[in-house]
Amino acid sequence: MRAPASFTCFTPPSAELTQTGAKLTEYRVDSVTPIRGPSDVVLDARVAPRAELWRLEQPGALAVPDAPFIGATQHLVYTDAETRRDLVRVSSPEPGPGQGSGPVAVLIPIQKSAEWWNLAQDERQQYLAQPARTAHVAIGRRYADRIYRRLYHARYLPRSEWDFLTYFEFRREDRTAFLELLEALRDPGQNPEWAFVERELEIWMIRPR
Amino acid sequence: MRAPASFTCFTPPSAELTQTGAKLTEYRVDSVTPIRGPSDVVLDARVAPRAELWRLEQPGALAVPDAPFIGATQHLVYTDAETRRDLVRVSSPEPGPGQGSGPVAVLIPIQKSAEWWNLAQDERQQYLAQPARTAHVAIGRRYADRIYRRLYHARYLPRSEWDFLTYFEFRREDRTAFLELLEALRDPGQNPEWAFVERELEIWMIRPR
Repeated sequence: MRAPASFTCFTPPSAELTQTGAKLTEYRVDSVTPIRGPSDVVLDARVAPRAELWRLEQPGALAVPDAPFIGATQHLVYTDAETRRDLVRVSSPEPGPGQGSGPVAVLIPIQKSAEWWNLAQDERQQYLAQPARTAHVAIGRRYADRIYRRLYHARYLPRSEWDFLTYFEFRREDRTAFLELLEALRDPGQNPEWAFVERELEIWMIRPR
Repeated sequence: MRAPASFTCFTPPSAELTQTGAKLTEYRVDSVTPIRGPSDVVLDARVAPRAELWRLEQPGALAVPDAPFIGATQHLVYTDAETRRDLVRVSSPEPGPGQGSGPVAVLIPIQKSAEWWNLAQDERQQYLAQPARTAHVAIGRRYADRIYRRLYHARYLPRSEWDFLTYFEFRREDRTAFLELLEALRDPGQNPEWAFVERELEIWMIRPR
């Protein structure tokens, strides 16, 4: 059977998970902070500071369908061919555990409003990619050489309560650059798209050496 | 928990399925025909002529995760706001079982090539929506008043082997119009996008009265 999609989940460790055949990455959670979404942001009790968290990546099927955070890697839906070539050229690879002190990883699950999902393709496209110097894609590009970024789609997975899992990884010395990136993405003047984000969490983690 | 996605599957009937709470539609299979994909198109033994088939629709979760055909209803990714308004205006509603002799339903699962999925958004967009008079969207629009159409996304669902389930429903007297629609979609002169379809089945069914 063909299995085009690759699935990723973040979940507490357990001995059985080592038997799934999924690729496994270990983390220790530093902090879990609700950023947007008022009192209704319920924090998953399975994800807490000092806890261990595993990332499992598996083609074809979800290793843990009821994990706190699940997502699928998809093709890009707002990036034109020229922008994609440019991003591939400038983007840093995943730092990985080998480089210096363990890199920092940040998982930011996001839920957008019904209003966003009711927009047509051309309307959403404008928020992501235009004007060329200020919108979401352009902001991310400025940091692409230092901040490794991954987007997992979650909205159309069974039992998912998030629309996207955004994932970042960087060396400790690039922490300030990462905070600048977040500030720019959340600034309505620079990135009007963020007004559609209804719910957002920050989960800071360390990848052990 | 929020459950934005609605899931659909086509599967053989069973008593337990009436307990899932999913919306249920009954069919009798007329024919199953491989259209594209050479000898490697394996027909699912659970879907055969004269068999009964059920469609189950459920928000949040898949009623039958291992059904022969599963899909999710998603937002549109190639349709601009003006085209969407126009399509809503001209499209026929689902004929349903009440109207005259039972309507005909046709399920066409589709798999596209790796080459298609490697295209960037602007490149895929051109195939779907331009030139305005000939591409996929324009061909479908010509029949939208008589042929009820639904697109279920399957590529990024766990354990799915199809990219899309396309679904059509029409009254028996509109069978010729439906065959014309298929012919136009599969004509490389009118719809170059179809060259990327690697695997395709036609499952003709009747909705009992």
